[in-house]
Amino acid sequence: MRRSQPHPQPLPMLEEGRGGQKKISIMGARAIRLFLTSSDLYIVLFEAIPPPHAWGGGRRWGLNMRTVEWHDNKVRMIDQRLLPWEFTRVDYDDYHAVAAAITDMVVRGAPAIGAAAAFGLALAAHQSTAADRPALLRDLESAASTLKQARPTAVNLAWAVDRLMRVLDDTSLERIDAIRAALLHEAQTLADEDVAINKRMGAFGAALIRDGDTILHHCNTGALATVDWGTALGVVRSAYEQGKKIHVLLDETRPRLQGARLSAWELKQLGIPFDVIADNAAGHFMRTGQVNIVLVGSDRTAANGDVANKIGTYKLGVVARENGIPFYPVVPTSTIDLSLKNGDEIPIEERDPAEVRAPYGLPICPDDYPVRNPAFDVTPHRYVTGIVTENGIAYPPFDVNLRRAVEDTLVNR
Amino acid sequence: MRRSQPHPQPLPMLEEGRGGQKKISIMGARAIRLFLTSSDLYIVLFEAIPPPHAWGGGRRWGLNMRTVEWHDNKVRMIDQRLLPWEFTRVDYDDYHAVAAAITDMVVRGAPAIGAAAAFGLALAAHQSTAADRPALLRDLESAASTLKQARPTAVNLAWAVDRLMRVLDDTSLERIDAIRAALLHEAQTLADEDVAINKRMGAFGAALIRDGDTILHHCNTGALATVDWGTALGVVRSAYEQGKKIHVLLDETRPRLQGARLSAWELKQLGIPFDVIADNAAGHFMRTGQVNIVLVGSDRTAANGDVANKIGTYKLGVVARENGIPFYPVVPTSTIDLSLKNGDEIPIEERDPAEVRAPYGLPICPDDYPVRNPAFDVTPHRYVTGIVTENGIAYPPFDVNLRRAVEDTLVNR
Repeated sequence: MRRSQPHPQPLPMLEEGRGGQKKISIMGARAIRLFLTSSDLYIVLFEAIPPPHAWGGGRRWGLNMRTVEWHDNKVRMIDQRLLPWEFTRVDYDDYHAVAAAITDMVVRGAPAIGAAAAFGLALAAHQSTAADRPALLRDLESAASTLKQARPTAVNLAWAVDRLMRVLDDTSLERIDAIRAALLHEAQTLADEDVAINKRMGAFGAALIRDGDTILHHCNTGALATVDWGTALGVVRSAYEQGKKIHVLLDETRPRLQGARLSAWELKQLGIPFDVIADNAAGHFMRTGQVNIVLVGSDRTAANGDVANKIGTYKLGVVARENGIPFYPVVPTSTIDLSLKNGDEIPIEERDPAEVRAPYGLPICPDDYPVRNPAFDVTPHRYVTGIVTENGIAYPPFDVNLRRAVEDTLVNR
Repeated sequence: MRRSQPHPQPLPMLEEGRGGQKKISIMGARAIRLFLTSSDLYIVLFEAIPPPHAWGGGRRWGLNMRTVEWHDNKVRMIDQRLLPWEFTRVDYDDYHAVAAAITDMVVRGAPAIGAAAAFGLALAAHQSTAADRPALLRDLESAASTLKQARPTAVNLAWAVDRLMRVLDDTSLERIDAIRAALLHEAQTLADEDVAINKRMGAFGAALIRDGDTILHHCNTGALATVDWGTALGVVRSAYEQGKKIHVLLDETRPRLQGARLSAWELKQLGIPFDVIADNAAGHFMRTGQVNIVLVGSDRTAANGDVANKIGTYKLGVVARENGIPFYPVVPTSTIDLSLKNGDEIPIEERDPAEVRAPYGLPICPDDYPVRNPAFDVTPHRYVTGIVTENGIAYPPFDVNLRRAVEDTLVNR
């Protein structure tokens, strides 16, 4: 694996400090990250983020690169663990490394993970030294299994891998080259479709944004969560590109801080005005008339319009309705699950307590303090003003109109 | 200044790490804290927290020591900046150092700050080398001014200093010794009154807690925010000491994390069962029936029952009412301001953006990312079930019953 944009990493000087402290002079570094294991502390020093013009001939990021893409027979991804401190793209020439990157959250966000796994399978076909179709199929089945296990709970991952494996059902694909080309074509199609869906949601959603609006946003739903453009932040971007003067309040989104780290970085690159806020502050801004609309994503939406999304979304929905502020989830129809009657059927994953106890390696409280860490919550549909999909905006009654959106028969397209 | 409980601080070993990283082996350390300046990084390694039996002959903290107290002609305080990693009490023999400790937030919480300033003025009298009353008064006026400026926005601080200075109005106090004794007596009275008020609120509030209840709590309102016992967490403690089986969900309380750092530490010492949660998770637990009552403090309460408290309280109030969960602020009558018609007259302080960008030295996002950081919000009285005071619990209509509480004429005492 090769880093496409290496950065100089100055080494610290160790000097004796005062009073039992060690003083480390950081020369030229603007930021640090820590990795704390049971016995060791790793300190990584980063340079300041290079200005956007250093990345792509003066063009802004997002206009000319994707979160996940096929490049020179390798899978190229933005390493999201390093943002906002370091913008690095990593090229993978081994599907095992792609699977490891998914596990290690180099890439996150359901649509982005799906595309990474699809390109990973295309990569497996390129790597394979099989001499005939049956041998290649054995290699690909092994690769598919490895990729699916990278994050077993990510529904999109299995969906993307299965979609690529169905390409192999075409038995007229005999030659190794033809199979490789067909798989890559399908992966590319899947990635392109994601961008197209996001831009359609952006166009529908932007109609909700008025000139001068302040938008409250939770978590990261931008280009980094998808192949490009984003869902709720894609709507923000579409409105901005229509020339609307907007301002965005970004929930930092504890425990994993995707808002402060990723959404803020994206808006900074795009030049869209924003403020990062502690999640606790969102209510104050809504109550005092400083928010015009709330936009969020959704991991899974039930047939009745109940929305499962990043923890904290529910409080926003309740407080938005209390203050008469419209609340819109922005969701591709692929995440609407009509088999679920309501949100109570959506299981709520509880994640590692370390995310709460020690965000990004900084211990807030000791390891033996008990923690509860639900990763998602359910916002009942009564708090939802409308649901933006790539087939239009579904309004209540959701049990009728979400089905129409999924079937692409919404009348307000 | 002398640290009453010094801890061994093992020094790190610096070894060459991999790939531009430095690896520091921490021998025996369980926790680290960082201080990052523009050019330097200080790393302080701490031992594990000593078990409670190491502190006071087997007795638990809180039963035998106070947040602020007079000890051996010095002002002794728990250094709250080091918790939960290190339990240290610091003895101050110079009122300038007491003022600096208030500025540096060694002590925080309005009642605790007031007591610290009161003892600081008593200390100034002890320090003074004045030979007669007029010279001592000049010294004390200078000290009063220094102490008041330690945190100019803390209302309790000026209130406590002014209360002590009024002791000097008694012109029959001629001898230096008599003045010193009178000031110390007044400071001790002020501190004792705070504890007594908290225990009375605890007794009234504990009647609201049923056996088996789960209590949701925001920020830190425990012994550390006061001289001892606490306000909302004092109610929790009173209920626990009545033998009620209770569980507490502690909002971590971004941005300053007083819940995860201080409230969790207090409950750990007291043996009261709890879980720390990200503030975002509180709504999920309320919606799914896992919370029976919400208890919070209040920095300032208006005549109509509108409550100004730590940012995030408002969202809790709205979501609690939405789920039919009782919501009680616990507030000494000294913080009820009948001159304020409603909460909109309470100014909302915006604090340093660094609290959001870099909690306790860990940078979440770069220094040039814009941040809004309101420190308080206002919860309108329609979300407030009742207000626990030392004179009983005030219920609506608050404009009548809060006045009765302040005048000590509530009928439900």
